[in-house]
Amino acid sequence: MTSPRLTLIMLDPETPGGRRADAAAPALPVTDLGVARGDGVFETLLAVDGRPRKLGAHLDRLAASARVMDLDLPERAEWERAVEHGLRAHAESFGAEPGGRLAVRLVATRGDDAAAETRPTCWVQVAPSTLPTREASEPISVLLLDRGYDSGAAERAPWLLLGAKTLSYAVNMAALRHAKKHGADDVVFVTSDGKLLEGPTSTLLMARVAEDGTKTLITPERRTGILPGTTQAAIFELAKAAGWELGYGPLESGALFESDAAWLASSVRLLARIETADGRPIGADPALAERLTDELWEMAESIT
Amino acid sequence: MTSPRLTLIMLDPETPGGRRADAAAPALPVTDLGVARGDGVFETLLAVDGRPRKLGAHLDRLAASARVMDLDLPERAEWERAVEHGLRAHAESFGAEPGGRLAVRLVATRGDDAAAETRPTCWVQVAPSTLPTREASEPISVLLLDRGYDSGAAERAPWLLLGAKTLSYAVNMAALRHAKKHGADDVVFVTSDGKLLEGPTSTLLMARVAEDGTKTLITPERRTGILPGTTQAAIFELAKAAGWELGYGPLESGALFESDAAWLASSVRLLARIETADGRPIGADPALAERLTDELWEMAESIT
Repeated sequence: MTSPRLTLIMLDPETPGGRRADAAAPALPVTDLGVARGDGVFETLLAVDGRPRKLGAHLDRLAASARVMDLDLPERAEWERAVEHGLRAHAESFGAEPGGRLAVRLVATRGDDAAAETRPTCWVQVAPSTLPTREASEPISVLLLDRGYDSGAAERAPWLLLGAKTLSYAVNMAALRHAKKHGADDVVFVTSDGKLLEGPTSTLLMARVAEDGTKTLITPERRTGILPGTTQAAIFELAKAAGWELGYGPLESGALFESDAAWLASSVRLLARIETADGRPIGADPALAERLTDELWEMAESIT
Repeated sequence: MTSPRLTLIMLDPETPGGRRADAAAPALPVTDLGVARGDGVFETLLAVDGRPRKLGAHLDRLAASARVMDLDLPERAEWERAVEHGLRAHAESFGAEPGGRLAVRLVATRGDDAAAETRPTCWVQVAPSTLPTREASEPISVLLLDRGYDSGAAERAPWLLLGAKTLSYAVNMAALRHAKKHGADDVVFVTSDGKLLEGPTSTLLMARVAEDGTKTLITPERRTGILPGTTQAAIFELAKAAGWELGYGPLESGALFESDAAWLASSVRLLARIETADGRPIGADPALAERLTDELWEMAESIT
């Protein structure tokens, strides 16, 4: 078992700022409900040159996920200190990262079911990003896959946890395996009634340029049961400041094919331009799609 | 951290029969995909007087879950040896269990994502059953909760893993919390198009007695996306031998209220009679419901 360049900080009520642990060593008992039941929440964020990006938005979403799950998490300041501790310890152990890009993962499980008192197990892990940078980013192919739920499920059945980022990601992983087995790179989930949702680990963005040159950036609406995208939100803010119009679903899957360009947005990879969906090209004008992608990359890379 | 009377056997290619590990000590790195993504499969079975019940059916279902998940598990004989090892070690450490009832959990995760070569992490854990025995079993109240999926989702979208028993159980746990918050004991999931499914950790059984005395035992059909119940299958076999008719869904939720008795069946608890669903009583004749429950308990306790 090797954990190359991985730094682990366990949050611990007795140790402000968290306790550094050996990342290659076992850290969780088999009775931890994170593994026993996928019962916990997480966030993954990007750190560049030792500084976390949009940490506030990620902590907001972690807290929102925990509320939906009835999980009582440590104070926000504890997480902030643990992230700082993790990034500092990582730099001390491994030096500055080539390219300076680290993935920081915040995890909270419901805790050890066999303990006398079950309380959340929480940690921060820091590792180099293995995802392509802007320079290495290639356009991707996706499959549109049925998420099984209709677009009303999230509102009528909160126990489905559709707005929470839980550790129960087996379906997300299975959808990605299905796509890869069929020669595609990624997935865009669609409701059973045909509405665009999100990727298994990303948010869907689409752009349309009107005849008068007006650019509109579009994303599916949240209440269909998608995770609120922190990268999507940051890019929307920057796009608005740059004069774009903003649009929110509900969106039929046809909207994807009518867009001039589309992307999957996420915190560490930032952007991946969707070239084809179910084998059909997105965007009638490849040069326009490239220009829009350059604009979005400028925004994505300027997120702080 | 205490793990009272818990025995842990890690499956290990180098140690036939598995390697005993300290159940109270950390056993998994945070990068294990079981905790990082709820990416794995499991089974829980009952052992009575040191002998596992219907181990073959559980190993069949574990293998079926693994196939759906593209997980390459150790040989069946390895699991059998590890279960035997676990039960023997547990008896040696803790003596015979009062009442003789143990819950045996078999788990396989996709393995450590940070390892040079990712291969499944597999273990067997043995602990006293904390669930009520027949004598202590009280009738329960359930809520009918929407599972979000329609009854065709399982067949058209295999990536939803609806027939696999995965570690991604956060929704099952959230549904149980929702029920308890609303004063109920358990849950029966229903499809978005109103078909009866299963409990979060159990299979739904219903009985009807015709005017001529013919008894029919009924369970929702598998292809609506439920887990094939090992206890349900074993009881169905015994019921058939005892002259019952057998019936399979699709079933509207109305069928629950028209039954003479209904139960949640599972491997360790065996049976829990459903007294009310959404506050409405099940079975017009309480004495008949009790008699049917006694008959089913006889069958459930004779499963080997």
